[in-house]
Amino acid sequence: MSDHIRKNFASDNVTPACPEVMQALADANEMGNLPSYGQDDLSLILNKHFSALFGTEVAVFPAATGTAANALVLSAMVPPYGGIVCDQSAHINNDEGGAPEFFTHGAKITGIPSPEGRMNPAALHQTLIQNREKGVLSPPFHVLSLTQSTEWGTVYSCNTLTELAHTAHEHGLSVHLDGARLGNAINHLGCTPAETTWQAGIDALSFGGTKAGAMAAEAIVFFVNERTRPMIQTMEHRIKRGGHSWSKQRFMAAQLLALLKNDLWLTNCHHANAMCQRLLKALHQHPAVHLPFATESNEIFAILPQKQLNALSEEGYQFYTFPTPDGVSGTLVRFVTSFYTRECDVDALAESLIS
Amino acid sequence: MSDHIRKNFASDNVTPACPEVMQALADANEMGNLPSYGQDDLSLILNKHFSALFGTEVAVFPAATGTAANALVLSAMVPPYGGIVCDQSAHINNDEGGAPEFFTHGAKITGIPSPEGRMNPAALHQTLIQNREKGVLSPPFHVLSLTQSTEWGTVYSCNTLTELAHTAHEHGLSVHLDGARLGNAINHLGCTPAETTWQAGIDALSFGGTKAGAMAAEAIVFFVNERTRPMIQTMEHRIKRGGHSWSKQRFMAAQLLALLKNDLWLTNCHHANAMCQRLLKALHQHPAVHLPFATESNEIFAILPQKQLNALSEEGYQFYTFPTPDGVSGTLVRFVTSFYTRECDVDALAESLIS
Amino acid sequence: MSDHIRKNFASDNVTPACPEVMQALADANEMGNLPSYGQDDLSLILNKHFSALFGTEVAVFPAATGTAANALVLSAMVPPYGGIVCDQSAHINNDEGGAPEFFTHGAKITGIPSPEGRMNPAALHQTLIQNREKGVLSPPFHVLSLTQSTEWGTVYSCNTLTELAHTAHEHGLSVHLDGARLGNAINHLGCTPAETTWQAGIDALSFGGTKAGAMAAEAIVFFVNERTRPMIQTMEHRIKRGGHSWSKQRFMAAQLLALLKNDLWLTNCHHANAMCQRLLKALHQHPAVHLPFATESNEIFAILPQKQLNALSEEGYQFYTFPTPDGVSGTLVRFVTSFYTRECDVDALAESLIS
Amino acid sequence: MSDHIRKNFASDNVTPACPEVMQALADANEMGNLPSYGQDDLSLILNKHFSALFGTEVAVFPAATGTAANALVLSAMVPPYGGIVCDQSAHINNDEGGAPEFFTHGAKITGIPSPEGRMNPAALHQTLIQNREKGVLSPPFHVLSLTQSTEWGTVYSCNTLTELAHTAHEHGLSVHLDGARLGNAINHLGCTPAETTWQAGIDALSFGGTKAGAMAAEAIVFFVNERTRPMIQTMEHRIKRGGHSWSKQRFMAAQLLALLKNDLWLTNCHHANAMCQRLLKALHQHPAVHLPFATESNEIFAILPQKQLNALSEEGYQFYTFPTPDGVSGTLVRFVTSFYTRECDVDALAESLIS
Repeated sequence: MSDHIRKNFASDNVTPACPEVMQALADANEMGNLPSYGQDDLSLILNKHFSALFGTEVAVFPAATGTAANALVLSAMVPPYGGIVCDQSAHINNDEGGAPEFFTHGAKITGIPSPEGRMNPAALHQTLIQNREKGVLSPPFHVLSLTQSTEWGTVYSCNTLTELAHTAHEHGLSVHLDGARLGNAINHLGCTPAETTWQAGIDALSFGGTKAGAMAAEAIVFFVNERTRPMIQTMEHRIKRGGHSWSKQRFMAAQLLALLKNDLWLTNCHHANAMCQRLLKALHQHPAVHLPFATESNEIFAILPQKQLNALSEEGYQFYTFPTPDGVSGTLVRFVTSFYTRECDVDALAESLIS
Repeated sequence: MSDHIRKNFASDNVTPACPEVMQALADANEMGNLPSYGQDDLSLILNKHFSALFGTEVAVFPAATGTAANALVLSAMVPPYGGIVCDQSAHINNDEGGAPEFFTHGAKITGIPSPEGRMNPAALHQTLIQNREKGVLSPPFHVLSLTQSTEWGTVYSCNTLTELAHTAHEHGLSVHLDGARLGNAINHLGCTPAETTWQAGIDALSFGGTKAGAMAAEAIVFFVNERTRPMIQTMEHRIKRGGHSWSKQRFMAAQLLALLKNDLWLTNCHHANAMCQRLLKALHQHPAVHLPFATESNEIFAILPQKQLNALSEEGYQFYTFPTPDGVSGTLVRFVTSFYTRECDVDALAESLIS
Repeated sequence: MSDHIRKNFASDNVTPACPEVMQALADANEMGNLPSYGQDDLSLILNKHFSALFGTEVAVFPAATGTAANALVLSAMVPPYGGIVCDQSAHINNDEGGAPEFFTHGAKITGIPSPEGRMNPAALHQTLIQNREKGVLSPPFHVLSLTQSTEWGTVYSCNTLTELAHTAHEHGLSVHLDGARLGNAINHLGCTPAETTWQAGIDALSFGGTKAGAMAAEAIVFFVNERTRPMIQTMEHRIKRGGHSWSKQRFMAAQLLALLKNDLWLTNCHHANAMCQRLLKALHQHPAVHLPFATESNEIFAILPQKQLNALSEEGYQFYTFPTPDGVSGTLVRFVTSFYTRECDVDALAESLIS
Repeated sequence: MSDHIRKNFASDNVTPACPEVMQALADANEMGNLPSYGQDDLSLILNKHFSALFGTEVAVFPAATGTAANALVLSAMVPPYGGIVCDQSAHINNDEGGAPEFFTHGAKITGIPSPEGRMNPAALHQTLIQNREKGVLSPPFHVLSLTQSTEWGTVYSCNTLTELAHTAHEHGLSVHLDGARLGNAINHLGCTPAETTWQAGIDALSFGGTKAGAMAAEAIVFFVNERTRPMIQTMEHRIKRGGHSWSKQRFMAAQLLALLKNDLWLTNCHHANAMCQRLLKALHQHPAVHLPFATESNEIFAILPQKQLNALSEEGYQFYTFPTPDGVSGTLVRFVTSFYTRECDVDALAESLIS
């Protein structure tokens, strides 16, 4: 299979696990009997390793899926009668089948419209004011959830993140970051993991592992502070109750530790971003293509003529299409690269696109 | 590690995965990019393989944990305002941190007391009558949940299962079987998987994989009939909403297929049961031991003098203790064997126990 | 008090109960001991009286508040993993403190934007198509909820209602009507209660009583058909579980029966509408007033200069203000009339407004 | 009707409202327009009047039903992943259709068996210890819910209540009292309202109004302390979200204020208790009657020969029957008296019973 061109650009989750993760799983299997439900030697060092990564005290809880990570962490940040505010494009608002509503027991999600998936601080401020004025009529916001990199492949600057988090904190909200593609954003920004998270005011993070090369491993990361301390106390109960506590938890911990070792996750994300830029360069030579968003991570959104999309499909390429804005001709399509995308795969796609 | 005596008898989930499962995961990783969320080639053949196992049409949904499997399947069998009736000792009633209540949105669980973890059909009948008479005051039962083998290591005969399921059906309930240790029961009964499930009236099954050798893989199995057809339609939504839909689902499917291949799961359970009987034989020679329940699967419950338990702990043995019934001296303790328990491990424990 | 000008135009729920309702309560109190929880003689004839009103078979369940009526009926129309589609301005989407999310266990509400609170059938069609295409990623819509008269005081024509309901039915949804001000709409349309409900395709109705003169009484009205029959079966359990089953239910039934007797509710709504038109006529003479919506029920929305609002407040008038659209100077304000508003009250307000 | 013998002893909620409550409603209706949702003059003085009754600072929230009051207050005392411990006979555990599970989002209720509906402090202590030892496997108890007077018509001494509450507090639980028949208990004990509530360690109370003579009015009463302060902050949101916020809330407040005026509720309960004692005296003369519980409030439980029950039914008497304990011949029946029961009604029943 690996000799053939890889034509699936539908998502960064269509990939296998990366070799280092597979080796870590095999190694974990050689450890014999171990205490279950997170009392094993690998799970017990997660906090230490993630604290080293972020340069601050953290409390880490592994989860097998990004939807679980987002929904579980949000459930600790907002009471059932409260509200979550996010960008209108947010994954939690559109793509998780109601998981946040399920885990929060019906907290209301309000999406703020934005052109590129990046929330505007002034719009946040106004939305928070209006929410407060509604009193008991509207579920009061308890948490701001941001996405880095965003659903449209753009990236927040650390300054904007800081401003948004500051506004939220001033109104008594805590701040969550959906970091399913955090590594891609960090690679784009050239910043440290700390700078785009807790130093920008993020209280809790969904750390993406699966898209960065794991089999099935994400991490809920709380940055320990006065706001998060009571939330952290509730997590083990919430995780068990959600059926997300693995008896053989060593196997989630092993994946996460493998990703952290030598910053493998960042290396994988760096590669994915580079493949995306390579594709972007090719697309810029394309006469008819329109790129509605800046390409700042491992996703390219392009509006292509329908005829060309049909041709790509016939060649076996896979990708998602999205509703195209009114008045625009063509179809909005997304190509996603990953640690598993090779230069030859990008070049083949580029050739098909441009020819 | 494998040279040393394995002293952890706390549960059959303290083990690694069995080699065949690990190989299947490695093989799945070599398959390159695959469609995510269950559209891969391995996931798509689960129904066929489980149908062959049970000799009837089934609809299968993988889940990473037994708690998730139980809670998810129950959520499709009972509305939020309804009730679940089970044995008082049931895992769903005592050990899942409220997961069934969470996934069913607060359906009420009623436990019927029984001496050995096996529900009495007459007691079920009486309980169903009383529930009906309560009208709107009590959540109406919609599902009977049974456990095979039971929480106390005993096994239902197929006849008793049939009688219980029949009673439930007559009252309009559907029937769920928690089969976290189903293979152990089948080995004890010497029956077919069909005989102790759908042929006995079971509508839906939590098929245990993790305790039988998987890394993290269970299967929700609906036996297709008039009662289950509408439930099946809802499952993909429930699973996504619970955060239990893996993007790289091939890795759950691969584990389950490995367990089914050549009846590996039954071979593993057969071995676990045999190790338990070997330990039982030794315990029978013990002067002071009291065995409150029949040993019919891979769990032995024994009431031992506290002094001896202390000695075992000092030697490094691990096991769970339970509240001892009033008026009994000694401590109720549980030893669990698995595919990973060797004869030498049992013999060493036996020696420590008897000496 | 009744000699003074009534200056509270904040809502039609700031009023007392109308005299006929009070008399009905007193009469019900003279009936001595009666069976509780809806088995009394008054509750038992609700179905018959509402069936006569609508000219078709109905199943009626009283509730003390409009929020309860809406949330309870919706909970029978959508599963927890499903979705509700409504106009963006809908009360269930903005003003019920998350009650629909609570009673439906987290079903997702999607609001379609519209200029005047009236959903556009084409927009509904497009939204339903997009929802279906999202598959498990989005909670699937199960119910369309419309509001008659709307939150902005406008009224759907029976034709538009019919078209919307037809589109919903074609996509497998059932249709709910929030009729907190249904009587006002019927008065405006000059139609029968049947024409603007089940004959237009409405499956279930929240029949507003409190704003039409009751103390605390609404009615959930199911129009009996294939879609609603299974919903109806669940209602008594849902109502009990929501704490909305009155032990002395005669007192809710008595209010509803009083409203139905001689069409008192329509008479009350007719009066409220007439008072609103009287105020409208006065406002038309106002030089600076802007009326953004058609005035078709008992609510007038007007954009007034801030200075004038301050003057009104100082005179003791009460009303709600709303966020004013961008680029508009002045403040959006709402005046609501009721059965309890007199011509002299309207005239006094008009004089203050115009002077 | 009032000339006839009142033969309905099924419950104290089959009655009308008492005359003082009806008058208070009529008076409230004469107050003209008033701010809605609890901002009216009557609602705003509830805290003051209840504080005077209990001699301490309280926060009061009216609710129309006892089920709503219990479920709402519990939802503020236990998180969704937590547990409630109560007597096995508790109303919240048996008779509220799953309302506590609904409002708490699935918190688990554990009932401790007791002979007479009065929880044993030692049993509570043991249950709390076992719960803690289960860790994440069992929802952790957050609240102890007691009932005064109990479901079997018995009454806790203030000393026992104090001991139970103390034990709960020591384990970090808060304490709720279901006081649907609190007035009857106070009458029996001859104590003050303070002594059997906050002075005994009760943190929050469901104050029963409907059974004491109201139309539909209960009160959630928080005794303000460090434990309850954060709970109180959440209540308005919970009540709105539960659909239990009346727009015309004056009418709930008026009922409660009428009950408090001149201790009307206690007078009514005193009368009910006296009627019960009168009936008890008669029953003592009955040769075959067996009274399984002490008669300490307004409920008598008696085991009567079936033949006699049939005779009573034929005479038109109404009462509830309960499952009779194994090995006992006869049927367990309950007679409930109220403010509305007259001496002549009791004497007629007694005559029928004894003859």
